[in-house]
Amino acid sequence: MDSTIQDKQQPLSERIATELIAHIVQSGLQQGDKLPNEKVLCEQLNVGRSTLREAVRMLASRNILVVKHGSGIYVSDKPGLSDDPLGLAFIRDKERLVLDLVDFRLMVEPRTAALAAQKADSKQLQELKDLALEVESLIAAKKSHARADAAFHTKLGELSGNLIMPNLEPILFSSIELFAHMCTQNSREETISSHRQIVKAIESHDAIGAMDAMVMHLTLNRNSLIYFIKQVHP
Amino acid sequence: MDSTIQDKQQPLSERIATELIAHIVQSGLQQGDKLPNEKVLCEQLNVGRSTLREAVRMLASRNILVVKHGSGIYVSDKPGLSDDPLGLAFIRDKERLVLDLVDFRLMVEPRTAALAAQKADSKQLQELKDLALEVESLIAAKKSHARADAAFHTKLGELSGNLIMPNLEPILFSSIELFAHMCTQNSREETISSHRQIVKAIESHDAIGAMDAMVMHLTLNRNSLIYFIKQVHP
Repeated sequence: MDSTIQDKQQPLSERIATELIAHIVQSGLQQGDKLPNEKVLCEQLNVGRSTLREAVRMLASRNILVVKHGSGIYVSDKPGLSDDPLGLAFIRDKERLVLDLVDFRLMVEPRTAALAAQKADSKQLQELKDLALEVESLIAAKKSHARADAAFHTKLGELSGNLIMPNLEPILFSSIELFAHMCTQNSREETISSHRQIVKAIESHDAIGAMDAMVMHLTLNRNSLIYFIKQVHP
Repeated sequence: MDSTIQDKQQPLSERIATELIAHIVQSGLQQGDKLPNEKVLCEQLNVGRSTLREAVRMLASRNILVVKHGSGIYVSDKPGLSDDPLGLAFIRDKERLVLDLVDFRLMVEPRTAALAAQKADSKQLQELKDLALEVESLIAAKKSHARADAAFHTKLGELSGNLIMPNLEPILFSSIELFAHMCTQNSREETISSHRQIVKAIESHDAIGAMDAMVMHLTLNRNSLIYFIKQVHP
């Protein structure tokens, strides 16, 4: 192997990528904003085009920038948030992972639901109801509802008003997808009824009710998982 | 701008990066394991060297691979985990962010401490004590203790036995670093005494005591933050 992809601690393109991040943060560029064109960026950063392009590709790979054909370079919609922010794909013991994900969600989501019940306005509540209905119709059509289910739980995070919660979506999606892969039966009716209970509590601004409904929802999921795992390894 | 860094939806190097991830996961390569050499990888993936190199640089930028000078390509120690997995650097309202981070930690860490009290063995307990002492000596030396403090809280996550908790370290570090930036006084003594209480409860396998000590620790942090923010914006 020659030295081209060997380290030199930090390659130039990596340093330029770090400078680009600092540029975005300091200049107050927001999600979806357009960056200066390539020529201007090369001048500002004092680098050649090929280095800039490599740095931009790295940041596109990390979902910080998006390159739009014929249009330019933009800040991504959720800058810095990858499909797998915690590297869960690299955890091999999927049975333990899916249980630990439910435990993690039992820490985070009941209180999130309680905050959502206190804070949601009528527009947000309607968005939550629409997502609950989308999950129900996917279940009725026997289609995968993992993505819509994660969107429902992420919407609750958004309603809680906490800036961090919406960024947990990829983790919720991993959890729900792994769960759906293991527990194909008996969770569908339960999903519909417990989502409805959560929505109802939030509609009534019943923080404790929303928290309890979420604890029940996730505890039932955990019970299904433990039952599944016991059947596979009696 | 010409087409070189424009999308074509997914550039070849990005597709090869995705294939490399699948290769790592499927072949069961673990953190720190060495990949086949460049020539073999090019053959396996049916690509040229320059494309492979770009894909490897992308994955190094995402902390999935590490390229060691004169040695080869390795799986990173915490594959896929970046310094900023949730893109917090791009959230501009730092005062709201730091409060929301404490709220997030109030969801996650009390129960984590309780699990640690139930599960920690004597070796792990010693590691926790060592980290608590490191924080204390840094505080005594008036040096920054943010990194050591995050390591203490991450160790608690490790002791909880939950696979996900250790991966939250970058989020804990962001929280502690932002907090230290705002609340320079009055938090040092509180940090020492509440870390000691947490360690003592875990040593006694007192799950409820550990949970309560963590709630108190984080609530005091939150109070300090609210006090600081009120002084800045009276």
